[in-house]
Amino acid sequence: MRECCIDIICEGCPVLLVIDERRRFIFQARRGAVQGSDKGVLRHDDILGKEYGSRVKLSSGIEAVVLRPRLMDYMERGFRRKTQVIYPKDHGLIIMLLDLKPGMRVLEIGVGSGFTTAVLAQIVGDEGRVYSYEVRKDNIEIAKKNLEKIGLANRVVLKHRDARLGIDEEAIDAAVIDMPDPWAVLHHLYRVLRPSAGAVFFLPAVNQVQRLLLALGLHGGWVGTSVYEVLLRGYEPRGDALRPYTTMIAHTGYLVYARKVHMR
Amino acid sequence: MRECCIDIICEGCPVLLVIDERRRFIFQARRGAVQGSDKGVLRHDDILGKEYGSRVKLSSGIEAVVLRPRLMDYMERGFRRKTQVIYPKDHGLIIMLLDLKPGMRVLEIGVGSGFTTAVLAQIVGDEGRVYSYEVRKDNIEIAKKNLEKIGLANRVVLKHRDARLGIDEEAIDAAVIDMPDPWAVLHHLYRVLRPSAGAVFFLPAVNQVQRLLLALGLHGGWVGTSVYEVLLRGYEPRGDALRPYTTMIAHTGYLVYARKVHMR
Amino acid sequence: MRECCIDIICEGCPVLLVIDERRRFIFQARRGAVQGSDKGVLRHDDILGKEYGSRVKLSSGIEAVVLRPRLMDYMERGFRRKTQVIYPKDHGLIIMLLDLKPGMRVLEIGVGSGFTTAVLAQIVGDEGRVYSYEVRKDNIEIAKKNLEKIGLANRVVLKHRDARLGIDEEAIDAAVIDMPDPWAVLHHLYRVLRPSAGAVFFLPAVNQVQRLLLALGLHGGWVGTSVYEVLLRGYEPRGDALRPYTTMIAHTGYLVYARKVHMR
Amino acid sequence: MRECCIDIICEGCPVLLVIDERRRFIFQARRGAVQGSDKGVLRHDDILGKEYGSRVKLSSGIEAVVLRPRLMDYMERGFRRKTQVIYPKDHGLIIMLLDLKPGMRVLEIGVGSGFTTAVLAQIVGDEGRVYSYEVRKDNIEIAKKNLEKIGLANRVVLKHRDARLGIDEEAIDAAVIDMPDPWAVLHHLYRVLRPSAGAVFFLPAVNQVQRLLLALGLHGGWVGTSVYEVLLRGYEPRGDALRPYTTMIAHTGYLVYARKVHMR
Repeated sequence: MRECCIDIICEGCPVLLVIDERRRFIFQARRGAVQGSDKGVLRHDDILGKEYGSRVKLSSGIEAVVLRPRLMDYMERGFRRKTQVIYPKDHGLIIMLLDLKPGMRVLEIGVGSGFTTAVLAQIVGDEGRVYSYEVRKDNIEIAKKNLEKIGLANRVVLKHRDARLGIDEEAIDAAVIDMPDPWAVLHHLYRVLRPSAGAVFFLPAVNQVQRLLLALGLHGGWVGTSVYEVLLRGYEPRGDALRPYTTMIAHTGYLVYARKVHMR
Repeated sequence: MRECCIDIICEGCPVLLVIDERRRFIFQARRGAVQGSDKGVLRHDDILGKEYGSRVKLSSGIEAVVLRPRLMDYMERGFRRKTQVIYPKDHGLIIMLLDLKPGMRVLEIGVGSGFTTAVLAQIVGDEGRVYSYEVRKDNIEIAKKNLEKIGLANRVVLKHRDARLGIDEEAIDAAVIDMPDPWAVLHHLYRVLRPSAGAVFFLPAVNQVQRLLLALGLHGGWVGTSVYEVLLRGYEPRGDALRPYTTMIAHTGYLVYARKVHMR
Repeated sequence: MRECCIDIICEGCPVLLVIDERRRFIFQARRGAVQGSDKGVLRHDDILGKEYGSRVKLSSGIEAVVLRPRLMDYMERGFRRKTQVIYPKDHGLIIMLLDLKPGMRVLEIGVGSGFTTAVLAQIVGDEGRVYSYEVRKDNIEIAKKNLEKIGLANRVVLKHRDARLGIDEEAIDAAVIDMPDPWAVLHHLYRVLRPSAGAVFFLPAVNQVQRLLLALGLHGGWVGTSVYEVLLRGYEPRGDALRPYTTMIAHTGYLVYARKVHMR
Repeated sequence: MRECCIDIICEGCPVLLVIDERRRFIFQARRGAVQGSDKGVLRHDDILGKEYGSRVKLSSGIEAVVLRPRLMDYMERGFRRKTQVIYPKDHGLIIMLLDLKPGMRVLEIGVGSGFTTAVLAQIVGDEGRVYSYEVRKDNIEIAKKNLEKIGLANRVVLKHRDARLGIDEEAIDAAVIDMPDPWAVLHHLYRVLRPSAGAVFFLPAVNQVQRLLLALGLHGGWVGTSVYEVLLRGYEPRGDALRPYTTMIAHTGYLVYARKVHMR
């Protein structure tokens, strides 16, 4: 984040425009540009030089607010994507399970649109590094654009490579594996992790979890194996009529955690 | 974390000894010391100079492994505590909602045993800072010891103060409020937050959530208000008989998120 | 259910036609009639005289099956309705909480489209009776048609009346209250229930639950008060790729149970 | 239920004595008998002839209430049991899935302590019948005593038989299968079910669900296959501090439903 983007919106700063619960837009502020919506138009010139958190009027007279976008906002609005599986509810637990912190060297297998990559890169900071393997060229391109847009590309090494054929790095502090057949990278993964380091595997179906558990057990170099699901329940935020939303995302995937130890 | 504690266990390094699922101990390695258990004794000398992740034999001949403790391990085993309410499942979502990252200045109201403090301090890194208000002197003492034990005390400013009477800091990037009457600090909190910055309130009972929602609405300087519960479901990690654990922690508290904007 | 509708489909028998997961139709078999769909047409003559459970061919050659509709099937496909709040997951718990059984006299306040009425009527059998109060005339009409369609109308006394103004019956064995302000009928309800009989209140919002709990406590004639939510999680029924459905109904309403005792 | 046990407690009537949330006792009222507790003693003579729902005083002066026990109360307090797996939350959904009603002939495989048997017997009424297979003699004895205690034994045919070797009955309207290897009875079950009738299988582990799904698919005579979990969330019933209980039963088992159709 550039210094100028912290409190004041200046040329090139990212903006989250919130008109109402469903009308939310993310863009970069540019002199002379406009942001359209079915509720009216915002002239960027009206917000340049203003503080984040300001209230602004659209051409229609309708009021809106401009905010500094969080990663979660990008995920909802600002990311180009083809697939999306891991949700912020899962990312949060992944951060805790892997004990992620600034300076870490993190391995990622399966990049998708790069959202998980962004979460990892944001936590490891400028001194950390994320090494991300992805077999699909189009995903690499999308993830690259997304990471550049939010200024995290410099912390990420995107690799158009099949991790099942090998992993180049060493002394990895933590790993996130989002691929359908993680047992196929288990030996490579084991080799590149630091002793005692953990890995989280994201798997949509029960059968994959079972097969991975068997593979981890057969391998013999893992302990602390655990399996989780995170259910996030949202409520209508009304003090006078509080109630859970009628529908919810009930399943994204299972998280399997294990940490490397010496072989038995 | 000292350099020596990354891969090799040396004098003073923290160790998580795992004998089995229920026998887990955290201690600092000290020449000549021993760690007892009902399954046998570990002589520290047997692990000094060894890699984390090593397998060791107890006096009984039973095998165990030594790991580098994560924050989550400290929470389960190594923390002195009087109360514990916020769980890692909640911390993960808090990190995502607040967009926590290295360098941030975070405000915490309600320290308890300091576990949430530790999570915040770990993420903001050496350049960040956590300002933590707590009204109970005994909690301050416990939190201080806990933070020192894990080497995060230097990033935290512990204040034995009632935040309802005022908050000293300014330009706060994010806040976590864990107190029974958060509406009583809302005006101070609003003043010290950066524009567009977010706060998460942790509240065990529905009635508190309702009252906070009303207070946020009346105040007029908050948007994006949302209410969540995180349910974490663990599974017995057996590939041949996978099933959820019979019981689970079904409730810790509700998380209310809101971000500061200009007053209407 | 007429005898002829048990195993063999005859003139007038109800039929659930299942073409695939999403194409399901309920109708009465009538000589000469047809059931259309975008996958082909079923001539009723092709199923008259056949067993329930038979496989049939549509005009397109596509295979389908004909089943005897359950109440749950009617709820999904065969009921005219304006609103629907209580789901089968809730009905199941209501049956257990109220100890519903054949011969009981059940009171219902708030009929809606009559689906809960049908569930109650089915369990109490021919010797039981359901007394159903509803303030909206259009709901009464819809419920009447729905109950006639499934042959349960003779067990139900539908009353276009506001229960807040009084309840005629006495010696009621169990009650289901689905109205926004149940505290307004509490005194009438108490009077007509048998001693020790239970009532279940269905309430969508937290605030209603709180108010009812306070009213039950103030009244002084209720014990065993309990509050529940039922979460039903469905799975994709694939042995080779089992996983929960991505979305689920996360909230219909809260169930509050209490039973009548002598006033303190 | 004898007529005399409906409103007035007379000799031999079942009684649920509730002293407080945790002190609950079920017994039969007997002239001259007493019910002890650590909070005082109840002389049965003090309640004989009184209405259910009455408030009574123990020898200690502490007040309690006497209620007519529901099946759910028996399950919690009054049943001798060796194992208990299916809970009322599951029974409720089973009743709805199987469209249970008075007069039905229900098959049960796996009796356990007879609680599910009692639920089925209560719903099918005097004209219905439950045929229950159980391989363990001790379970049969316990279930028999339990069913006699609650007056439902006359509706149940308990069979000390292995259903895998064959099922005697025919024209069964619904079935509940609670055994570890239900695929071993699938052919017998199919034969004895009426066309279009449903069966619910209760299975604790994921692997069993997968194997059953494969078996149902291979057999070819089943449709509407679905898999469910019921999560029941209880709340502390306090209007001024409503919140979910901290812990909950997070898993009893999965319910698999399927209905018989003609073979493909």
